[in-house]
Amino acid sequence: MSEETHQLRCTECGARIAGTAVNSIFRCPDCNGLYDVIYPWSPLPTSADVASGSNLPNPSALRWLWQERRTSTLPIDQSGVWRFRDLFPIVKNENVVTLREGNTPLYEMPRCAKIAGIDWLLAKHQGMNPTGSFKDTGMTAALSVAAQRGFEWVACASTGNTSAAMAAYAARGGLRSIVFIPEGKIAWGKLSQSMDYGALTIQLKTDFDGCVRVLTDLVTRFPIFLLNSVNPYRLEGQKTPAFEMLEQLEWQVPEHVIVPGGNLANGAALGKGFSEMHHLGLIPRVPRISIIQAEGANPLYRSLQENGGKQLIPVKANTRATAIRIGNPASWRKALRTLNATGGWCEQVTEQEIALAKAEIGAEGVGCEPASAVTFAGLKKLVAQGKITREERVVLVLTGHTLKDSQYTIDYHRNELLTQEEVAGATPLQQAQHTLLRKPPVVLEADSDIVLRTLETHMKISSSVLPA
Amino acid sequence: MSEETHQLRCTECGARIAGTAVNSIFRCPDCNGLYDVIYPWSPLPTSADVASGSNLPNPSALRWLWQERRTSTLPIDQSGVWRFRDLFPIVKNENVVTLREGNTPLYEMPRCAKIAGIDWLLAKHQGMNPTGSFKDTGMTAALSVAAQRGFEWVACASTGNTSAAMAAYAARGGLRSIVFIPEGKIAWGKLSQSMDYGALTIQLKTDFDGCVRVLTDLVTRFPIFLLNSVNPYRLEGQKTPAFEMLEQLEWQVPEHVIVPGGNLANGAALGKGFSEMHHLGLIPRVPRISIIQAEGANPLYRSLQENGGKQLIPVKANTRATAIRIGNPASWRKALRTLNATGGWCEQVTEQEIALAKAEIGAEGVGCEPASAVTFAGLKKLVAQGKITREERVVLVLTGHTLKDSQYTIDYHRNELLTQEEVAGATPLQQAQHTLLRKPPVVLEADSDIVLRTLETHMKISSSVLPA
Repeated sequence: MSEETHQLRCTECGARIAGTAVNSIFRCPDCNGLYDVIYPWSPLPTSADVASGSNLPNPSALRWLWQERRTSTLPIDQSGVWRFRDLFPIVKNENVVTLREGNTPLYEMPRCAKIAGIDWLLAKHQGMNPTGSFKDTGMTAALSVAAQRGFEWVACASTGNTSAAMAAYAARGGLRSIVFIPEGKIAWGKLSQSMDYGALTIQLKTDFDGCVRVLTDLVTRFPIFLLNSVNPYRLEGQKTPAFEMLEQLEWQVPEHVIVPGGNLANGAALGKGFSEMHHLGLIPRVPRISIIQAEGANPLYRSLQENGGKQLIPVKANTRATAIRIGNPASWRKALRTLNATGGWCEQVTEQEIALAKAEIGAEGVGCEPASAVTFAGLKKLVAQGKITREERVVLVLTGHTLKDSQYTIDYHRNELLTQEEVAGATPLQQAQHTLLRKPPVVLEADSDIVLRTLETHMKISSSVLPA
Repeated sequence: MSEETHQLRCTECGARIAGTAVNSIFRCPDCNGLYDVIYPWSPLPTSADVASGSNLPNPSALRWLWQERRTSTLPIDQSGVWRFRDLFPIVKNENVVTLREGNTPLYEMPRCAKIAGIDWLLAKHQGMNPTGSFKDTGMTAALSVAAQRGFEWVACASTGNTSAAMAAYAARGGLRSIVFIPEGKIAWGKLSQSMDYGALTIQLKTDFDGCVRVLTDLVTRFPIFLLNSVNPYRLEGQKTPAFEMLEQLEWQVPEHVIVPGGNLANGAALGKGFSEMHHLGLIPRVPRISIIQAEGANPLYRSLQENGGKQLIPVKANTRATAIRIGNPASWRKALRTLNATGGWCEQVTEQEIALAKAEIGAEGVGCEPASAVTFAGLKKLVAQGKITREERVVLVLTGHTLKDSQYTIDYHRNELLTQEEVAGATPLQQAQHTLLRKPPVVLEADSDIVLRTLETHMKISSSVLPA
């Protein structure tokens, strides 16, 4: 009987191969398609010779097991990703590389709910992961595979959350990591984390596509594990917030889950998680998963509008929500599959809508990076369009911590973020809300009475404009 | 029988008062001393008329209860602070304001252990709290008290982690928050979080002491809840990482716990936590708690050297570890009490030692803000002095997330952080380690062979210098 626990299945032609037989660029040699990781119990299962997993516990036993592990002191159980390892048995326990990712809070957002016009809104905050973004849930999975397969080097082309997560998990696992970026496109703030975790940053004298070409050539010729979003193991970790969310909701399925759409792997991963839970009888139905893009980086939205999603229309991406500034997303077909399977929608939002949504989330004491805020901006649109109704339960997936982009917050509150054109595009109510939410520091004499008068004025303004 | 669950006890004259009877500046009206929160079961208990807590469960029952709560989906149980509420019954459950703080990872640090020359080193990472610093554990406690007592405004004088935490919890609880800073001393990066969470920042035309004077006057005259470090309820939350750490260690007490020393409330709070656990029979002994200060902000170290801690010698603070850049710490007596009660030491470390320690922690994939790194720099000194021996178990308390000060990391890796003098003060080994750890981006032709040769060189250098 085989030792294999999983296979890879091409999302285009359906060909199945052993996980260890995959090429170094994680693409089907026949049709160039991306892979899904599949198991004997998957909706699209492995071929019959894969043995493990046939003794998967039943739904109640799984739920009980996952709950019990929360009381364990073992690192692998304290991880909010690996606690669910029964549903992604991709490595042996001893090879797991973990920073205790997952276990992220599910916040009630009563004031945001009121603003959007619904009764019940929650935010699953993936920015509370160790490096400050949802990428950790995927990197713990992919780095563990790299470690088990004996790689000493890992690499990706990215300057943002992906490189930070890769560098941290590589360091934790004792592997070396390389970040490729185009020369001249260096954003120091974005690189600070990967440098801190000891990654080597290489600026290539070429553009982003050129970086991907060199990286592809390198991983083909040398034993370097590729950690770009095409790596299917990352999605196995990224599907686990779906499990955790349901556990936190005591297995009551919400009607809607809303995610930001950048490289589109995240929505696809959550979709896979929900679909597997449904297939296994853990939940009676799946939530609608909707994907929100920034208007300036809207290839999926545009493709759906213009050709019903038959072909991707790449765009030249331009948005201040840098984490989703992606014009040619690799995982668009996987994301489309999720939209179709769950009945979700793809929407786009403007820069001023993103800024307003971020400030409204912040004012609930939660905070997030700009890309996360598209979820709330999109929710408002879906409610206005009647696609989401008042009594339906909605979970926003916030993908990054507010500390990931302090400059955006500073610029917003100093009124230096939005252009006059962007502000002019806002409704009068939106403009009033911006004015209310913006909190530029005020300068006062060192006198308590003067301070008090300012506070009283401030309080009056607030109470007259804030929703009751 | 009284409804009261706790009292406040002056740390100077020992006078006991009801919690609700405290004045608005949290100082003893007789002797100006700070307060401790005490309970009927405290080492220094409340007066006899305080009723609650007399039915405190025994140690085994407490341990069982705390473990069981980890499987609960209630917010108050999912909080890693309020899960231990039996030992700080300061508010009713329904008044708790929580962002699911606590539950922070306890990381094994094998490479740092080797560098320091000990067998077993752990890091309790309080920077993994919701706003990125240990202040959250205290703010959830103090804001809950503010909410229960009906305050609508809270305030502090701070530009850093304290204001971020205050703003977040105030927003969560529906209270308004004010941050006071001296005019002209604005550090936008530090303010970004409190603006995001909706705090009002007031720059006063005075210095820091002037800010504290105005704030003191304001809270005396108006119903504004003071959240500076003198607020004793903050320490009740900040003591809980001691409980959580012991739970994660399955109640095996480490020999040493090392904390950074800034305003000195953190070491004091952990000391209170350990001492209460010991008094209640949860642990058979307390660990030594040592406090490490930056050489440029070393009032406690200096006072201990020069007068044995009889009087505080304030200093003009100057260190790049901004979170501990405090020259006149309010809680120095409480910290001294902890050092004396546990047999810990106070040490100081230089700027280049801090920078090196931070890079070494980062290279384990963990990362922290500069102030946190003094713990590891201090550990090396205590080991070198023979105060900590190889087989003793050490826990470093990391207080802030690496994202709290990206600029420090960037400057370090660009070799723009340390002055020539500071580098000259390093030993040759330290200098070599800096060279090895610094990871400035390299620029290369877009050619795989050139990239590969660079990687090979890099790998060779690394393996020849890194500890085996």
